[in-house]
Amino acid sequence: MDFFYNAPERVVDEVIDGLARIAPVKRSAETHGVRVVVDRHWNKQRVAVLSGGGAGHEPSHAGFVGKGMLAGAIAGDIFTSPSVEAVLAAIRATCGEAGCLLVIKNYTGDRLNFGLAAERATREGYRVRSVIVADDIALDEATQKRGLAGTVLVHKIAGHYAAEGADLDTVADMAQRVCDGLCSIGLSLSSCTLPGHAIDRRAAELGLGIHNEPGVREVDPVDAGDAMQLVVAPLLEAINERGSGDAPLIVMLNNLGSCATQEMGVLFNELLARLPAERVARVVAPAALMTSLDMHGFSVTLLPAEDDFVSALESPVAAIAWPGLYSARENESFDVELSAASNEPAGARDADREQRIERVVQRLIESKDELDALDAKAGDGDTGTTFAAGARAIRDALQNEVLSSGDDARMAYEIGEILARDMGGSSGVLLSILCTATGAALDEGSNWSEALMRGIERMQHYGGAAQGDRTLLDALIPATEALGEGNDLGAAATAARDGADATRSMTHAKAGRSAYVPENALRDLTDPGAEAVARVWEQLADG
Amino acid sequence: MDFFYNAPERVVDEVIDGLARIAPVKRSAETHGVRVVVDRHWNKQRVAVLSGGGAGHEPSHAGFVGKGMLAGAIAGDIFTSPSVEAVLAAIRATCGEAGCLLVIKNYTGDRLNFGLAAERATREGYRVRSVIVADDIALDEATQKRGLAGTVLVHKIAGHYAAEGADLDTVADMAQRVCDGLCSIGLSLSSCTLPGHAIDRRAAELGLGIHNEPGVREVDPVDAGDAMQLVVAPLLEAINERGSGDAPLIVMLNNLGSCATQEMGVLFNELLARLPAERVARVVAPAALMTSLDMHGFSVTLLPAEDDFVSALESPVAAIAWPGLYSARENESFDVELSAASNEPAGARDADREQRIERVVQRLIESKDELDALDAKAGDGDTGTTFAAGARAIRDALQNEVLSSGDDARMAYEIGEILARDMGGSSGVLLSILCTATGAALDEGSNWSEALMRGIERMQHYGGAAQGDRTLLDALIPATEALGEGNDLGAAATAARDGADATRSMTHAKAGRSAYVPENALRDLTDPGAEAVARVWEQLADG
Repeated sequence: MDFFYNAPERVVDEVIDGLARIAPVKRSAETHGVRVVVDRHWNKQRVAVLSGGGAGHEPSHAGFVGKGMLAGAIAGDIFTSPSVEAVLAAIRATCGEAGCLLVIKNYTGDRLNFGLAAERATREGYRVRSVIVADDIALDEATQKRGLAGTVLVHKIAGHYAAEGADLDTVADMAQRVCDGLCSIGLSLSSCTLPGHAIDRRAAELGLGIHNEPGVREVDPVDAGDAMQLVVAPLLEAINERGSGDAPLIVMLNNLGSCATQEMGVLFNELLARLPAERVARVVAPAALMTSLDMHGFSVTLLPAEDDFVSALESPVAAIAWPGLYSARENESFDVELSAASNEPAGARDADREQRIERVVQRLIESKDELDALDAKAGDGDTGTTFAAGARAIRDALQNEVLSSGDDARMAYEIGEILARDMGGSSGVLLSILCTATGAALDEGSNWSEALMRGIERMQHYGGAAQGDRTLLDALIPATEALGEGNDLGAAATAARDGADATRSMTHAKAGRSAYVPENALRDLTDPGAEAVARVWEQLADG
Repeated sequence: MDFFYNAPERVVDEVIDGLARIAPVKRSAETHGVRVVVDRHWNKQRVAVLSGGGAGHEPSHAGFVGKGMLAGAIAGDIFTSPSVEAVLAAIRATCGEAGCLLVIKNYTGDRLNFGLAAERATREGYRVRSVIVADDIALDEATQKRGLAGTVLVHKIAGHYAAEGADLDTVADMAQRVCDGLCSIGLSLSSCTLPGHAIDRRAAELGLGIHNEPGVREVDPVDAGDAMQLVVAPLLEAINERGSGDAPLIVMLNNLGSCATQEMGVLFNELLARLPAERVARVVAPAALMTSLDMHGFSVTLLPAEDDFVSALESPVAAIAWPGLYSARENESFDVELSAASNEPAGARDADREQRIERVVQRLIESKDELDALDAKAGDGDTGTTFAAGARAIRDALQNEVLSSGDDARMAYEIGEILARDMGGSSGVLLSILCTATGAALDEGSNWSEALMRGIERMQHYGGAAQGDRTLLDALIPATEALGEGNDLGAAATAARDGADATRSMTHAKAGRSAYVPENALRDLTDPGAEAVARVWEQLADG
């Protein structure tokens, strides 16, 4: 299965069925053999703007049905023009005395079938006008220019005037003016694949249609900017040739099918960067508007930003697929406030405490290989290395006399900063959270055991581990609790040791890397983080 | 070039730069080494809802920054958590006295970096709360559930309450309630490709993450419906287990990257078809919300439709990527009005005229091979066959006595219907347009030459060809003009013949299939359509 399809012949109906569950539309009953989608709230008082064509261009055209855009859409099979009868059915369903406008993409099948439907409808007494969208600039004058994504702008502008109550000639003349101004061209990295067909990718092509027709030439852009330049250069040339040499423009980037949102973002940035800023008056939000199934490509459409086009494009619509019009600005950046490197000297210091800290970090440095070996049996074997790195960084701070060892809260913060910066791994950040939250609690007047419990709570909140999960918490929590119960450091150290030893029987880790290790591998193995913490407390108790 | 990227290390900044040109955001200056995007109009009076994480999930998270959603977003490198300093910078840029809420996806890196930033910010005096989104139902309880697309609903709901002026605890508690209710799971047909890396596709997988982690199991769905069932079944089970057994739901279909719009339509239809109608309370329009680069897959998110969730999701936002909330209805279909098969007997008949028509169609039938041969040199060799098919159908109508040969306008319409139905090819439809428009003009009182000119004008409008383009018009127009100048059928026939012969020197076709034929191949070749028309007029003149 290469694509999310069911039976190929059901694709078009299924898409319309899904759309009709949430969009302001209703669809013709399937039994009629035609596919017409109309505005559920349509009342024939306004000029009905109708469009359609082969399917495979979703969200065109049914996604643009709704107040302010299309009164109805007619869908053929994939890449196949709808029948005359289908177009006629749409006209009969939506066209009142105000008449209707057919927006036809410039493909022979569409022109003929919509055309004959228009003539038959005229005979039936309907007032019908039509415009033919031929926005493709890739083909030379001798060949029939195709209708591409620019068609959507015709829908939007004509739909706006129709909704405002303009008469048929006004709506049709406005649509014709849009058609006269539109320039589009596409570039793809691959062809598209029809439902039920095997994937057969072609090379990158410029100037392609939306029905898998080959592009006018193969191209080999080196990157997204290069690809965009291949599109923007001929577009600007074409629109300037029409005498819009310095006119501001409406700019539209269309996803031809399977560009990822990130790629669309890169392309959009390139597009705006390659147009003179003063010419970018308005931008349609980048979106899939007129696709060619899953084609991995994009097209760009330019339209002179005449005032009445802009106001028509700005008005709100009920159609579900219109992505909205935006003003383009220069990219505005702001200066963030970064944490200043602390240049102030350490606060109060305490020589005795510094000696005790010195002995604790020394103990951790000496434990490096042992802890690494313990970790190697259950994890990636770096617990000793990580703790030793943190320990060395604290020793450096002591040696550089920048640890405020005589100020509990400040010392906790400073150790937190050191561990976040120099310890590495998740445990560096987790211990930094512990120290930082402990420091904040000390600042607020908590004693050490209260403050540590606060730090542990925060570490658990962000780390997600609980006691019994085979982490350093299994030593840290009992030690802190022992302290909180009024016991001395010796009792806390014993509690830490008991807790660390108890991890040997915890064979089902729930957090950290050991969570992915089979239970047998963990049996009789002390968690290296808990072991490290036990050694810290033991050293603290030793003095 | 497989993707629209420039230098891989520039992707994230480029996407943000492009976005900031049209979205209501500004970005941190690149020189700071952090990527923070904030609401341009933010004023610190409200609770700041902040989110972020690794990039590669576009439009998350920067696309959701704007009034009513996020106050700011923090982006790391692709699939890499942003630094503590970046999160802190976002807090400092947006958090006032009302405080801020961090919405954190449940990945270790995000939890730790956002967590440490929160603790440091707390120390700096900011009021910070955080929620951790873990909506993934694919992983069992022992393993850390991931944050998936449901995160976007947390942004929207928390953002709504923040915009309404709710206090930090209200916003955070509401966000936590959303987190508690969310269930998401994804299915992909391929893995994704990081910028700058070679494409390496894996098999279809269910229960995948958004960072190319393998899914919990490989699957082999036979079609889109099957794929959707694999997703919907465990989702309903999970949400029902939480006691929402018959509660109405908010339903969201997320494009994980490169699903075409048509595929999304098929999937959306399947999704709604597989949920009990009474449980689908609201639907987020299908869209790319939380992608995994170009992953060809989708995820579905369900959330109990509590009233305060629904009203929060319905409110408008300035954020550019929110696709809107819709009510789901049963699909509503309507009956179209098809053209009735005419059962009424022919109108007035005219025996003389029927004999003349009989001779004309006989002449065309006899010309079949000659015209096909002429066409074979420049086209696909079927002009004779096509004209003969139309002629035979008219002869059948004569023989069945269903042609209103004594009523000019009605006869023209009837021939138009016959040609559209039975002649085939573009020319069948074009000649049907000619006849239908001619009939309409005759109805309005035009004489034959005026009516034919009207028909020709319509045929040109829809067919796109002009005189001189080497088509049947080159015989038809001169003949009609001769008639219009008061000449008899003989003069018209001469004009048609001269016109047809003149196509021999038209070596550059502009319309029809000959447009693609080299000029040399057309030299001294009569256009077969023009030849057919000339023979019609000659036969008419002969009586």
